[in-house]
Amino acid sequence: MVEQHIASAFDRDLEAIQARIMKMGGLVESAIREAAQALETRDEELALTVRQGDKAIDGLEELINEETARLIALRSPAASDLRLVLSVMKIAGNLERIGDYAKNMAKRTGVLAQGPSISEGTSALRRMAREVERMLKDALDSYIQRDVELARDVIERDRDVDQMYNALFREFLTHMMEDPRNISACMHLHFIAKNTERMGDHVTSIAEQVIYLVTGEKPEEDRKKYDTTSTTPQEI
Amino acid sequence: MVEQHIASAFDRDLEAIQARIMKMGGLVESAIREAAQALETRDEELALTVRQGDKAIDGLEELINEETARLIALRSPAASDLRLVLSVMKIAGNLERIGDYAKNMAKRTGVLAQGPSISEGTSALRRMAREVERMLKDALDSYIQRDVELARDVIERDRDVDQMYNALFREFLTHMMEDPRNISACMHLHFIAKNTERMGDHVTSIAEQVIYLVTGEKPEEDRKKYDTTSTTPQEI
Repeated sequence: MVEQHIASAFDRDLEAIQARIMKMGGLVESAIREAAQALETRDEELALTVRQGDKAIDGLEELINEETARLIALRSPAASDLRLVLSVMKIAGNLERIGDYAKNMAKRTGVLAQGPSISEGTSALRRMAREVERMLKDALDSYIQRDVELARDVIERDRDVDQMYNALFREFLTHMMEDPRNISACMHLHFIAKNTERMGDHVTSIAEQVIYLVTGEKPEEDRKKYDTTSTTPQEI
Repeated sequence: MVEQHIASAFDRDLEAIQARIMKMGGLVESAIREAAQALETRDEELALTVRQGDKAIDGLEELINEETARLIALRSPAASDLRLVLSVMKIAGNLERIGDYAKNMAKRTGVLAQGPSISEGTSALRRMAREVERMLKDALDSYIQRDVELARDVIERDRDVDQMYNALFREFLTHMMEDPRNISACMHLHFIAKNTERMGDHVTSIAEQVIYLVTGEKPEEDRKKYDTTSTTPQEI
């Protein structure tokens, strides 16, 4: 009886932490969406909202880390529960990083609003961000529902994001070569594209945690990267 | 007597984990140095060594996380000890990220070796990487010795790294404008510069952990960033 009581106290504590993860996930999804919208519509006010909102995301991560540590110390969870608790910390870390990238996108919006408009670029970036946002939603759903199939689907879709990045990389290079006045703006857009691609990597890492939790299966050591731009010379 | 016995078992376990942190730190310092050297001398073999070496760094982080969790579960440390244990996990996370950036630098070396040489750029990058490597060494020393002054010095020096990055950003933009054939190489070099600047941020985060551990003082919420390129329009 006592054991069961302890076990359910652990579950209750963990549920409270997971609720915070979901809240954090919701804030990060909004940050991605609003940062990409601000970039496309050159809305500096919205960009500022995203930048300021990042503090709440960081605060949640800190809270989750503290509560998780307290949970471990208080309940001394067994191996499989410990794995679960550590995955919560990792997911919070991934979400925090994604939030940082969204904030950085918002920061660059201010600079870009002052230069020439590269509108095809910014709308392609918004599509890319939209896909990452959807992947994030599904990755978090797969976590809550322990849905391995959905998690695998998220990982699969990260390839599309990598390919969107590759296409943008080439597009920005072309713009830069065509007109040197585009160079500065394209450098910023390129960073945004790369950061969005990295958001996708963090979402993938969340999905991999889900697979590991349910199946005990670790992701392949060398998951094939579909961003080829750092290893392939560009032919333009 | 029993309490004291438990306390020293905690200390012993923690020391073992800290020894791993130091080993991880040594590997990361080498990775930074060798990646920058490979970039400057266009040494693709050395670059490959760096890329392969990242697995050992990742493996150490995983081990540290597992051992740290086990330590918390087994010893149920009090608040201040828990803070110490969590800082170990954070530092391992910072080191792993720095290792990733070094690996990425090594990956780009292969592409760059096939294009035009931008030798002033790569030697400036190597100087920047050298400074980050020194900062990392000092940050880890400050951690082991609980040396707040040294930690503050590291944080101060990150400004220089940010300024080196700003200078390189402008230099690469100029190269790109002068000759479109430099654009592709400069994009890669620019990423490397940005990643090196981010390494400095992670080193700073380690130093901030030290200050927090010793003084309980949190870093300012909005530590002034001296990378101004994402918020200032470029005048060229």
